[in-house]
Amino acid sequence: MARIAMTPPMGWNSWDCYGAGVTEDIVKANADYMASKLKNYGWEYVVVDIQWSVASAVNHEYSQFSDFCMDEYGRLIPAENKIPSSAGGKGFKPLADYVHSLGLKFGIHIMRGIPRMAVYNKCKVLGSFEGKEYMASDAANAYDICEWNPDMYGIKTDSPASQLYYDSIFKLYAEWGVDYIKIDDIARDYPVKEVEMVAKALKNSGREMVLSLSPGPAKLEEAEHLKTHANMWRITDDFWDQWELLYAMFERAEKWCTHSGPGHWPDADMLPIGALRMDYPEGKHETGFTEEEQKTMFTLWCIMRSPMMMGGDMVHNDEFTEKLLTKASILEMLTKGRSSHQVYKRKENDSEVIVWSAVCSEGGKYLAVFNTGEKDAEFSVSLEECEVEYFVKSLDLWNEKEITVSDGILKACVKSHGAACYKFY
Amino acid sequence: MARIAMTPPMGWNSWDCYGAGVTEDIVKANADYMASKLKNYGWEYVVVDIQWSVASAVNHEYSQFSDFCMDEYGRLIPAENKIPSSAGGKGFKPLADYVHSLGLKFGIHIMRGIPRMAVYNKCKVLGSFEGKEYMASDAANAYDICEWNPDMYGIKTDSPASQLYYDSIFKLYAEWGVDYIKIDDIARDYPVKEVEMVAKALKNSGREMVLSLSPGPAKLEEAEHLKTHANMWRITDDFWDQWELLYAMFERAEKWCTHSGPGHWPDADMLPIGALRMDYPEGKHETGFTEEEQKTMFTLWCIMRSPMMMGGDMVHNDEFTEKLLTKASILEMLTKGRSSHQVYKRKENDSEVIVWSAVCSEGGKYLAVFNTGEKDAEFSVSLEECEVEYFVKSLDLWNEKEITVSDGILKACVKSHGAACYKFY
Amino acid sequence: MARIAMTPPMGWNSWDCYGAGVTEDIVKANADYMASKLKNYGWEYVVVDIQWSVASAVNHEYSQFSDFCMDEYGRLIPAENKIPSSAGGKGFKPLADYVHSLGLKFGIHIMRGIPRMAVYNKCKVLGSFEGKEYMASDAANAYDICEWNPDMYGIKTDSPASQLYYDSIFKLYAEWGVDYIKIDDIARDYPVKEVEMVAKALKNSGREMVLSLSPGPAKLEEAEHLKTHANMWRITDDFWDQWELLYAMFERAEKWCTHSGPGHWPDADMLPIGALRMDYPEGKHETGFTEEEQKTMFTLWCIMRSPMMMGGDMVHNDEFTEKLLTKASILEMLTKGRSSHQVYKRKENDSEVIVWSAVCSEGGKYLAVFNTGEKDAEFSVSLEECEVEYFVKSLDLWNEKEITVSDGILKACVKSHGAACYKFY
Amino acid sequence: MARIAMTPPMGWNSWDCYGAGVTEDIVKANADYMASKLKNYGWEYVVVDIQWSVASAVNHEYSQFSDFCMDEYGRLIPAENKIPSSAGGKGFKPLADYVHSLGLKFGIHIMRGIPRMAVYNKCKVLGSFEGKEYMASDAANAYDICEWNPDMYGIKTDSPASQLYYDSIFKLYAEWGVDYIKIDDIARDYPVKEVEMVAKALKNSGREMVLSLSPGPAKLEEAEHLKTHANMWRITDDFWDQWELLYAMFERAEKWCTHSGPGHWPDADMLPIGALRMDYPEGKHETGFTEEEQKTMFTLWCIMRSPMMMGGDMVHNDEFTEKLLTKASILEMLTKGRSSHQVYKRKENDSEVIVWSAVCSEGGKYLAVFNTGEKDAEFSVSLEECEVEYFVKSLDLWNEKEITVSDGILKACVKSHGAACYKFY
Repeated sequence: MARIAMTPPMGWNSWDCYGAGVTEDIVKANADYMASKLKNYGWEYVVVDIQWSVASAVNHEYSQFSDFCMDEYGRLIPAENKIPSSAGGKGFKPLADYVHSLGLKFGIHIMRGIPRMAVYNKCKVLGSFEGKEYMASDAANAYDICEWNPDMYGIKTDSPASQLYYDSIFKLYAEWGVDYIKIDDIARDYPVKEVEMVAKALKNSGREMVLSLSPGPAKLEEAEHLKTHANMWRITDDFWDQWELLYAMFERAEKWCTHSGPGHWPDADMLPIGALRMDYPEGKHETGFTEEEQKTMFTLWCIMRSPMMMGGDMVHNDEFTEKLLTKASILEMLTKGRSSHQVYKRKENDSEVIVWSAVCSEGGKYLAVFNTGEKDAEFSVSLEECEVEYFVKSLDLWNEKEITVSDGILKACVKSHGAACYKFY
Repeated sequence: MARIAMTPPMGWNSWDCYGAGVTEDIVKANADYMASKLKNYGWEYVVVDIQWSVASAVNHEYSQFSDFCMDEYGRLIPAENKIPSSAGGKGFKPLADYVHSLGLKFGIHIMRGIPRMAVYNKCKVLGSFEGKEYMASDAANAYDICEWNPDMYGIKTDSPASQLYYDSIFKLYAEWGVDYIKIDDIARDYPVKEVEMVAKALKNSGREMVLSLSPGPAKLEEAEHLKTHANMWRITDDFWDQWELLYAMFERAEKWCTHSGPGHWPDADMLPIGALRMDYPEGKHETGFTEEEQKTMFTLWCIMRSPMMMGGDMVHNDEFTEKLLTKASILEMLTKGRSSHQVYKRKENDSEVIVWSAVCSEGGKYLAVFNTGEKDAEFSVSLEECEVEYFVKSLDLWNEKEITVSDGILKACVKSHGAACYKFY
Repeated sequence: MARIAMTPPMGWNSWDCYGAGVTEDIVKANADYMASKLKNYGWEYVVVDIQWSVASAVNHEYSQFSDFCMDEYGRLIPAENKIPSSAGGKGFKPLADYVHSLGLKFGIHIMRGIPRMAVYNKCKVLGSFEGKEYMASDAANAYDICEWNPDMYGIKTDSPASQLYYDSIFKLYAEWGVDYIKIDDIARDYPVKEVEMVAKALKNSGREMVLSLSPGPAKLEEAEHLKTHANMWRITDDFWDQWELLYAMFERAEKWCTHSGPGHWPDADMLPIGALRMDYPEGKHETGFTEEEQKTMFTLWCIMRSPMMMGGDMVHNDEFTEKLLTKASILEMLTKGRSSHQVYKRKENDSEVIVWSAVCSEGGKYLAVFNTGEKDAEFSVSLEECEVEYFVKSLDLWNEKEITVSDGILKACVKSHGAACYKFY
Repeated sequence: MARIAMTPPMGWNSWDCYGAGVTEDIVKANADYMASKLKNYGWEYVVVDIQWSVASAVNHEYSQFSDFCMDEYGRLIPAENKIPSSAGGKGFKPLADYVHSLGLKFGIHIMRGIPRMAVYNKCKVLGSFEGKEYMASDAANAYDICEWNPDMYGIKTDSPASQLYYDSIFKLYAEWGVDYIKIDDIARDYPVKEVEMVAKALKNSGREMVLSLSPGPAKLEEAEHLKTHANMWRITDDFWDQWELLYAMFERAEKWCTHSGPGHWPDADMLPIGALRMDYPEGKHETGFTEEEQKTMFTLWCIMRSPMMMGGDMVHNDEFTEKLLTKASILEMLTKGRSSHQVYKRKENDSEVIVWSAVCSEGGKYLAVFNTGEKDAEFSVSLEECEVEYFVKSLDLWNEKEITVSDGILKACVKSHGAACYKFY
């Protein structure tokens, strides 16, 4: 296992705010923001999402049969109208260089497989196997397509052309200086052999890159294979700013929490907060989550140690969003939390309470108390039941102040859909 | 309902003997044979099966991403190396003319949908809708592909381009003089709207053509829609010369028998007898069915009134096969049988007996007695149980002689896997 | 196969009008009615339905853990408060004698299995096997109970006590002079070995009795076993006077129609017409079916050759009901119909039409035209499509008059939910 | 939540060694053994398993319809031939007193529901509700039976008689001095309302008793309800001395591990070791597990914090078994382990390795390394991957000696089917 992603990756991804229409200017503006305001808190990856090779893709819709920017080997390259610095065959190298110059890391999105257009355009595959050269049609599997994107064929798992093609694209990404690959249409149905080819191509590239699998839900019975072949994988379908989706994440988080660890992270998906859907002309751009819900999301992601990828256009962050992204007392759990899990979920005081705990690697314990019901409520949490033992200090992490606990019962006042979080040590 | 296929269609199809590699010479040779030896017995359709537009397809394998012969409107045309008379844009017209000159009818196979290659080659669709012209990409649905053949995209059911495309191909087939269309990848999953488009395109063409849907199994709950939109539809997956498949047909036949009638025929698939698999160089060409099994197949197909499409290369017919195809006493049930159904299926005398009956349109009844067990046996069939009443004459149809029945019990000696067949009137 | 039920049984059953509360007076009154008014039309069986051994059961509800009238061998006997003539151990013999004196036949309902109470009361089983005697607990299977009635245990299929017990009850029924056994909780899940035991016990009794299995839906894949072990079996769950249930019967009838024949009849359940639910004090007793719906029901049951068991209290028949039960022109199909099946089901003229046909054993054909849509409509029925051929006479069977057909098209005006029926010969 | 079972219950249960035939002598002998040899290691519950009220039950078979010892209120009482001290209506009180006199605790097995025999014997239910008295038949549900035991009816959840009956039996158990109730036929299908009635009756009894639910597998989605209504619940069907069952427990343990905590314990079932199946006259009494497999079982049960119920007849313990039961270095994890979970499962060195970790409540971490493959092997375990941090001491717990770890890689030599276990602090 490569020694990357030893803690959950943190960064920004362009999908939630710009869909398939992101451009170089936007990426740079967000990278600048991250470098100046967030870098000290652990944020580091800047990731360009889907269809950067399609000149005509400008929003959250995929058009069928669009023209790709592609090299002679069927490898997708950035569309110049979107990524002007890529002109002259330079690909993402100039943009990656820029991001690196800020002390950050650079990532891109790709689809599993090989472009259908590469097949019908009769592209060659770069390189050779045992002296033999191949065509895109040798790698493509005409019967394997994505259910929600029309661009690619899956690969034939028994053809040497397939590994050659994957090697050729990861080699290109390494040349560009990419640090993070989000590969799509691969985590849900989980084509085991293709995942292994991808992991091998990444290794063959000679460059360390975080490997992130989408979309979810991944299957729990694949957990051990996922842990040895990828650095993060989605545990849900696309997550957006709706309470129902956030509430449903608790159950997913509970199922997957024991599989978090250095190098392998169940991924609760991007944080749809701040300024979203910028391509919807008349749309409501601000997140649909209340402030309480955002605290709930932040607390859950941090205590379960999910990767944290900001989804909003950070240039438009309001004060609340910026404070959230720099809440060090909560973010601390991402690096110091261990063995987190749900302690219980109960109806209490006309509302519903969910309690999570995590061990602190430096000693002590974290407790998170979520009010998932529809009423503000005070909950009584038995420290004995939570196995919180041997502590001398008690902190309220959101309010950053000490508290006192009598008779082993923590009294937590939590607003509806909100969260409280504590540290005992 | 068109007045065609008023009795079950009878003919020859090239798949079982030549797969995707059939040529004009072979078609003509079989048509000649049919005209001289079988026409008087009701045989009339000569059908060219799959990939006649692919120059490189020569046997039962489909290659992925092969080049099609196609006109500027994305309509497939015969490959000249296979159908030389099609040269100069004449399509199947010369071959159809030849078949017609013999007093026979001509049919072709097509796949549901539009060629993927037509999309990537940016073909136009012929004609216009409300003054607007369309491209192949307007008709093709990038998410709808066939599971076992890599050539086509299914169509978008909500685009005017789709009906235009179907109209354009049926118009071409009408110009060629085609009498029978076997359309594939459509009967099993049964895309209702696409079936309706196909039926409408056939009607729009102005020519009467038998419409045959493949492959099966079709779904029983679609029976009424099938009866009003097609002339025949497959009730099983591909049928070959194995006893297990023949045995399984009894259950299918029983389920579907009440849906046979003028213009609409549940189809038990081609008859894999005589000389098969001619493209397998070292293969065993003769059918794997014993003579008894062939009699069983023939009897069941005729009493259930399935279409009868000969699968073997008739030029190589042996004497037994020729006699079978001209057995008028059995073939009579195809035109005179009515209301056929299974009477019973039982263990009897260490073997298993299945009895079918049909009414004769001119009065009287047919009885078929099948020995589906592993031992030769004599079965006692109660005429009262079979509701055979008021008759004066009893015929053994395979042996073409009169029999006597005492005490209302028919004694039928039938070899293992064989059949006997009777007429009482 | 016994030579009984050579045509579909016709009769009366007490369930629809009196539930578990029927008494001797009611039975006699209905038998008298049948003898004087219906016998000439083929009606002959008078059947006493469930819980005749439970003194306290008075309506359509089963009480749990009620006391049974039972002999020392765990055999249920009639409760004297309900069947006074049974006093002194005479069982159903006096009532059966009375019914026989009218020229009719007598039937009773039983539950599959052995009374739970017989087990806990430590009853012996009558008779012995290989010199050994048994207890009710040797026959009862503690793990096999009915889902909707609390009275019985199913039997152990591997204990000699089980066949002994079944033999003992059928022997008793033979002594009483019973002609018809409706056995319940057996047709749906279909315990094959128990069915075979029941059929054997019936045979061992030495008396011919119709064997009727309830409740449905029976499974189509058991058709051949049913045909050799029972005379009739239910093809649906309980049928009542609601259009939705009647409409659903068309699909069942279509599936089962090929399995009708001498001695074995798929059973569409009792006719819920006339005076029903007499135990509901404030209830609406008259049937919920319109007159048109009753004609539809009658036509379908007759053309498919279902057993016909009147469910209403016939003493209260109104004029319409009495005319229906004596409609000889329609009832004729029960005895003369052959090979009936659905010809088609279609949307037509803003309504829906279903057409059935049957062959007449004396030559000719029956056609039934059902309007299952919500509007009165005229339907055009092609006689060629229905394979009606070679006739000289055309009768409208409900109106009992000749009709004329031009150009092979029958014009049938049918009210919504109604039926027309024709004979061509 | 009652303050009992704050750590996983430890004890002995009679089922594995004596089935339904356990007697007072056997119970006392095992209690004596426990008091003298095991008590200091945490073992304390002595539990009498099924059918102690059935005089004739003597082995692992249940007979159907056997006579129960029962009081006038339908409450089962011990059979005197088995529990002689119960004579004179004293029930289990004298035996419980004996066990208590040894400083141990006493438990019994019961089946969910009310005896079928209580219904047919017309027993009354003790007590009254709103001035009204009830019969057993008011509580019993004739349609709710156990699939594998013939004794009981489930209860009607909507009848006051049901809570009355449960109250009456738990009151009796409290009077007897019972400390532990194993209730059967309740954890798998999980009748929620009946579970709540049982928990309420236990509370109403005024005595603290451990509530243990059988058999499994319980459903993961019921976890939160289980945690608030029971102290332990089975996570598998019956567990016996076969490697396949032990191997399958790893997957169950992984799924359930986050639900362990004070008062609520997922239960991996009894330990089938030592002398088993004593009622099988010619049987093999010693456990089928190898010594390595027993170490694996012990390690897994302790690190996951399952209840530990010895299944063998302890009087016949051999030296290995006695040492196992007193292995304090491993048993320590039951009380000090926290947040245990599977770290990974992998193919390695031609074998398969599973690694579990747990936090120690006093600081430090436990690691267990299981060789679940078919070959002895040395595994390399990365402490960083296991998040083992900040330690100064490393112990091998089975061998009770210090070890050294170089470069953060623990080298674990483990025999096939065996286990190693470590503590770092």
